[in-house]
Amino acid sequence: MALQINLNADIAESWGAYSMGNDAALVKIVRSANVACGFHAGDPTVMHRFVTAAKEAGCSVGAHPAFNDLWGFGRRRITMRPSDLEYMMAYQIGALQAMCAYAGLKVTHLKPHGALNNMAAEDADYALAIGRAIKTVDRNIIYVALPGTEMETAARKLELPLAREGFADRQYDDNGNLASRSIPGTVLKDAAKAAEQVLRMVRGGEIVARSGKVLKVQVETICVHGDEPTAVEVATAVRKGLEGAGIQVVSLDQMKLPG
Amino acid sequence: MALQINLNADIAESWGAYSMGNDAALVKIVRSANVACGFHAGDPTVMHRFVTAAKEAGCSVGAHPAFNDLWGFGRRRITMRPSDLEYMMAYQIGALQAMCAYAGLKVTHLKPHGALNNMAAEDADYALAIGRAIKTVDRNIIYVALPGTEMETAARKLELPLAREGFADRQYDDNGNLASRSIPGTVLKDAAKAAEQVLRMVRGGEIVARSGKVLKVQVETICVHGDEPTAVEVATAVRKGLEGAGIQVVSLDQMKLPG
Amino acid sequence: MALQINLNADIAESWGAYSMGNDAALVKIVRSANVACGFHAGDPTVMHRFVTAAKEAGCSVGAHPAFNDLWGFGRRRITMRPSDLEYMMAYQIGALQAMCAYAGLKVTHLKPHGALNNMAAEDADYALAIGRAIKTVDRNIIYVALPGTEMETAARKLELPLAREGFADRQYDDNGNLASRSIPGTVLKDAAKAAEQVLRMVRGGEIVARSGKVLKVQVETICVHGDEPTAVEVATAVRKGLEGAGIQVVSLDQMKLPG
Amino acid sequence: MALQINLNADIAESWGAYSMGNDAALVKIVRSANVACGFHAGDPTVMHRFVTAAKEAGCSVGAHPAFNDLWGFGRRRITMRPSDLEYMMAYQIGALQAMCAYAGLKVTHLKPHGALNNMAAEDADYALAIGRAIKTVDRNIIYVALPGTEMETAARKLELPLAREGFADRQYDDNGNLASRSIPGTVLKDAAKAAEQVLRMVRGGEIVARSGKVLKVQVETICVHGDEPTAVEVATAVRKGLEGAGIQVVSLDQMKLPG
Repeated sequence: MALQINLNADIAESWGAYSMGNDAALVKIVRSANVACGFHAGDPTVMHRFVTAAKEAGCSVGAHPAFNDLWGFGRRRITMRPSDLEYMMAYQIGALQAMCAYAGLKVTHLKPHGALNNMAAEDADYALAIGRAIKTVDRNIIYVALPGTEMETAARKLELPLAREGFADRQYDDNGNLASRSIPGTVLKDAAKAAEQVLRMVRGGEIVARSGKVLKVQVETICVHGDEPTAVEVATAVRKGLEGAGIQVVSLDQMKLPG
Repeated sequence: MALQINLNADIAESWGAYSMGNDAALVKIVRSANVACGFHAGDPTVMHRFVTAAKEAGCSVGAHPAFNDLWGFGRRRITMRPSDLEYMMAYQIGALQAMCAYAGLKVTHLKPHGALNNMAAEDADYALAIGRAIKTVDRNIIYVALPGTEMETAARKLELPLAREGFADRQYDDNGNLASRSIPGTVLKDAAKAAEQVLRMVRGGEIVARSGKVLKVQVETICVHGDEPTAVEVATAVRKGLEGAGIQVVSLDQMKLPG
Repeated sequence: MALQINLNADIAESWGAYSMGNDAALVKIVRSANVACGFHAGDPTVMHRFVTAAKEAGCSVGAHPAFNDLWGFGRRRITMRPSDLEYMMAYQIGALQAMCAYAGLKVTHLKPHGALNNMAAEDADYALAIGRAIKTVDRNIIYVALPGTEMETAARKLELPLAREGFADRQYDDNGNLASRSIPGTVLKDAAKAAEQVLRMVRGGEIVARSGKVLKVQVETICVHGDEPTAVEVATAVRKGLEGAGIQVVSLDQMKLPG
Repeated sequence: MALQINLNADIAESWGAYSMGNDAALVKIVRSANVACGFHAGDPTVMHRFVTAAKEAGCSVGAHPAFNDLWGFGRRRITMRPSDLEYMMAYQIGALQAMCAYAGLKVTHLKPHGALNNMAAEDADYALAIGRAIKTVDRNIIYVALPGTEMETAARKLELPLAREGFADRQYDDNGNLASRSIPGTVLKDAAKAAEQVLRMVRGGEIVARSGKVLKVQVETICVHGDEPTAVEVATAVRKGLEGAGIQVVSLDQMKLPG
């Protein structure tokens, strides 16, 4: 049987008069789109437009919920009650489900955005709050999680479908975390290198960290970012590299998942 | 067959540290609750709390969407593209549906809030935008409309279930509109008078306007407000008056509707 | 004595992760900059950055306050109590004054943004509310007004310094209003035509409307927009045209004003 | 020479249709009022109303700036760039200065609100960012700081006037921090006990912690809270206790300060 993998990208991060990202190009390359839900980006009209675009491109659609932080674009850590977080997650999922009704789509997955993703990786209360929101609103929604973190633990504990995520265009530290963006060179802008990193991750279950150390990792989805000028080129190379190696690139709801 | 009517009230209009209304009391008196959806009031935690309270009291739950206007509490008129309004309505309905998932409830109806309700009564584009959002997200959601307005027209045109609304605690002008709150005496604080106005509306299909003129009106639901100190007393008297006259007070999804 | 005129442009309309406009280029061409104040655009960091840029370019700095409407970018009409509007204006002026403290600048003028500008032109209550905020916070702030509107009337009534504004890059209707952007051709992208329109306005006190009708107009400041791709080219041509004709282009606080 | 002390309270924490606190009563008891500046509470109209009330009561007025967090009422910790925080502080100070123009008052002090106060006590970057905003906008503004924290250090380093704050109605831990509100009994609702705690703090420079341990402390201002039902009674008792002991209760700008 052929190896398979999912490619995902964040979309719908524009807001009102403000544009961001290369959504129209990205939805044609990846197979699953993470849609901003109005709290860090993505007003209702933007959500509607890009859910429609994802549908036309054959992408599955997932929620990309965030802290209520438009100014900080969801990149600021906020300490809140887990119950507030949980209901805020449910709220955003529901809002996206309504937008998906326009396209006849279901929300297939959820991937937290920015600082929330980082905090949920470390904080069991946050990771579980997100998981409970998923479980209540639609227990078939796939919890996209950084492998080996509290998010993966929460998904397994709540018996939710789980997809572990690797990154095409970012370097890793020895502990499996992403190396900080503030260190020069940690964002891969060389399409060939990104494609190579992904191939090794998918075929070999391995990542070569910045230090050269080889890490073992199991992922079901690969994130390509859209906010670098090189993003579309990188994403294209990653997809071609995978397909050239005979690996099927499928949407998240078509993946065989561990959860 | 017994006459029947619905009683509705707006709930979940608190926000974070701020409290508003007598929700806990009101949900025990009315049969359908209009839940604020986060745009003029009602954060996700507040929505969750009062959807749960409505469920326990046996109230059906509807959306009470509004303009994005927390400062103005949704009472400011805002001119926006009908498509923006439509997606903003869908967004709020979906958010509430997710909250209802916690209680095992469906969103049974939608009643626009404040200035949006006033504008939709007069403006066909707004009334239709709201209706299209309902139709796309769940065409079984009942459109609660001021009788004889663009809202009723829109509901009929889109073939949506319709419930026309009268008011227990407000005086009417001769044209069937509510008399302005700024005129002293137009808010009925006398429970007996409110109960009498409702009885005549339900049994006789008549309202006596401020001038004394008798208006013909057909309504399926009666709104009681929660923000006056006398609100609970008025609501209680209205319900007793109806039941004392042998009229069944039912939830909106149990009403026989014209739409 | 040489003719003189001011050129103004809107700046600081970015927000968090979102960029908008050609501020760095525009502040080198115009002599007065209208700074967004955080309600339709312009977070505190953005305000700080571009007040500093304006200072370095020798621009005077004015407030560009707006409705509280980030989603609609201040382009939606909002109906609010004039007193709420007044205090909201004062709030935004004060916020900008604090930012100007970083640059050692004063706020020299105020020009309302978007829908607020349009409404204040027609509505005496709004125009006066803006004027009262100016008068209370700093009565030396110049009220930039569309000529012949309620704004000009309010500035004169409150005895505020007044600068009447013409547009370089927009066509006019016969009544002196700007022709709607939705009509093709009403935004002038031809730099030479814009320069010619401005020269005639400044030297001859005349505008040729879309219909060909010649309107009489007196202005002290000319607005160039920054959001068209052609904006910088147009602004450059306008300035060169003025200087080539021996007209001094000065900052608003250096203009001889009628108010 | 008579001992003197300041009493302060947070006011203007209402928002739009939402009311909070006992501002009208508190401004008659305390001598300095900390005015919410629109980010966690306090819309422009509310700010205007209570700056006017403070003026009438003879209170001096200070800024009570906060994180941009209306939902969390400024009680959620947010991690942001110190420069973003600094400009956000300057923005809020400026906004309040404009409101003070209506009353002919100056902003005499600044006390951070909620989670920002807690974070600034521990985090030198935050404490200095707040201090730099003060220093740039008006270096005469008094920095109200928790004694012995990074805030006091920052005020001294930046050579700002400093007022150290004690609490009338809260118990202390052995390290001088406030005991958590979540522990029963840590909020003093007994007016006599609060008055006694304050007297000992002002006359003896001592606080008796929850454990019974006696702490040494030097304060120039005492905070009374307004959000407990017992608040006005407690504040009244504190003031009477002080005056009965011959201690002058003065506004912050009349205090002899260490900074």
